[in-house]
Amino acid sequence: MTRLINTQPDETNNLTDEIVRTSVRRFKDDELQDYEDFVAREYPLTIILNDQELVTLLCTPSKLKQLAVGFLYSEGLLQSGDEIRNLTVDEPRGIARVSTDTGQVDSETMHKRFITSGCGRGASFYNATDITGEKVTSDLRVKTGDILSLVRDFQHHSEIYRATGGVHSAALCDNENILLFTEDIGRHNALDKIFGECMLDDISVDDKIIVSSGRISSEMLLKVARRKVPVIVSKSAPTDLGIKLANDLGITLIGYVRGKRMNVYTENWRVV
Amino acid sequence: MTRLINTQPDETNNLTDEIVRTSVRRFKDDELQDYEDFVAREYPLTIILNDQELVTLLCTPSKLKQLAVGFLYSEGLLQSGDEIRNLTVDEPRGIARVSTDTGQVDSETMHKRFITSGCGRGASFYNATDITGEKVTSDLRVKTGDILSLVRDFQHHSEIYRATGGVHSAALCDNENILLFTEDIGRHNALDKIFGECMLDDISVDDKIIVSSGRISSEMLLKVARRKVPVIVSKSAPTDLGIKLANDLGITLIGYVRGKRMNVYTENWRVV
Repeated sequence: MTRLINTQPDETNNLTDEIVRTSVRRFKDDELQDYEDFVAREYPLTIILNDQELVTLLCTPSKLKQLAVGFLYSEGLLQSGDEIRNLTVDEPRGIARVSTDTGQVDSETMHKRFITSGCGRGASFYNATDITGEKVTSDLRVKTGDILSLVRDFQHHSEIYRATGGVHSAALCDNENILLFTEDIGRHNALDKIFGECMLDDISVDDKIIVSSGRISSEMLLKVARRKVPVIVSKSAPTDLGIKLANDLGITLIGYVRGKRMNVYTENWRVV
Repeated sequence: MTRLINTQPDETNNLTDEIVRTSVRRFKDDELQDYEDFVAREYPLTIILNDQELVTLLCTPSKLKQLAVGFLYSEGLLQSGDEIRNLTVDEPRGIARVSTDTGQVDSETMHKRFITSGCGRGASFYNATDITGEKVTSDLRVKTGDILSLVRDFQHHSEIYRATGGVHSAALCDNENILLFTEDIGRHNALDKIFGECMLDDISVDDKIIVSSGRISSEMLLKVARRKVPVIVSKSAPTDLGIKLANDLGITLIGYVRGKRMNVYTENWRVV
């Protein structure tokens, strides 16, 4: 048996490459061929908050500081970028260290976990059923033509990543343009990277649109709701709980955006 | 604003329906239409092991006992079906109670979490980098034609679910037939349901093939490795860490099975 794979870091594969070379035996039309292919890298990033090891995320190795900050925010462990005293990422060892003014997380919080279904990281410290968030009241309006056009641009941005292994993407947009774009093997990570970047660079999100490549489940909705984003758009379907939360929290949820069609599940007054 | 959605349980939607009715406003070719559509249900299932609340999974409400057992096994909290003294599921409240001979989980185990990227649940108590599992040594051989045929059948089984919202599927197969088939909004849950069912019904898996609809990341590989399954097949791509683990653990990893082609990433001697 030949040892086929070479996915360890070496001269041809950098540790933080997002895609890596691998050998593969392909069967096609009854023929056999050995060749080199590319697959998405899965990189473990351990987040240490105030000297306490919190979690290890499996992610695409890009925008790691943004991911760490966005994750902490999504989990309710960070309220604003101003709380961060220090933020370093040790890429070779896969460690993000964050120091804040808020001190350690109590073990009760650590214990109360909410492991989700999502095509994305999944675990969360909050409980979806405990949510008592304020409604999003933004009077933003979006045109159907603009949404279709944003999703077309978004698909175009994602092309290279989809080609190499179907990773997920997320984008922050205004009515006409993609402002930030991220990709990750997990759809939750991609969204956390967007929000982390916005926190670090002081970019407002409560007047913007989020586009995601993945299914809109409850946890995706909760992340968006925490940041008061009024509109979330996906080419995929939502779940019933995603729709229920969008409705309760006043968020316009648009799914199945494909070609010239889209479904608006909630708060359709924002779509003109 | 009309309240569009009706995703709460009522006469038309049963609590454990896998898909539920929802109202939606559709824009299509510049026309607007209000109609009823179906979306996947996202159901929270809290697992209580020996009176200790362990985790809440977001899942598709089917095979809940199997999911609870499979999850506990995957997390290393259960070694065999014989350890189970009692197993009940309270469907309306979304609670699975499992009593075993093994007692409570220590808080250190609870704390050491490994939140994954996966299109699936994601969190896990083990650390992928700590794995020192034995190699899978099964001398099972599979024919390329059989794999292509199994994946065709698998796709056919999945059709109804994909149509209503893109949920994931997993199957246990022998060389020619699908023996068990499950679906879930999370690809990890779908696999846990398969393994839970095998544990409860005493079905061997170490001479079988697993087919999954989702990307093969490290955590999927670890679940399969724990059960000593020699072959895992997906129409999607693997990640580099998935390939590395398959190689280290002696598992044949086949991806991108589409039409008449497939990629064999590791242990290709099993494919004849």
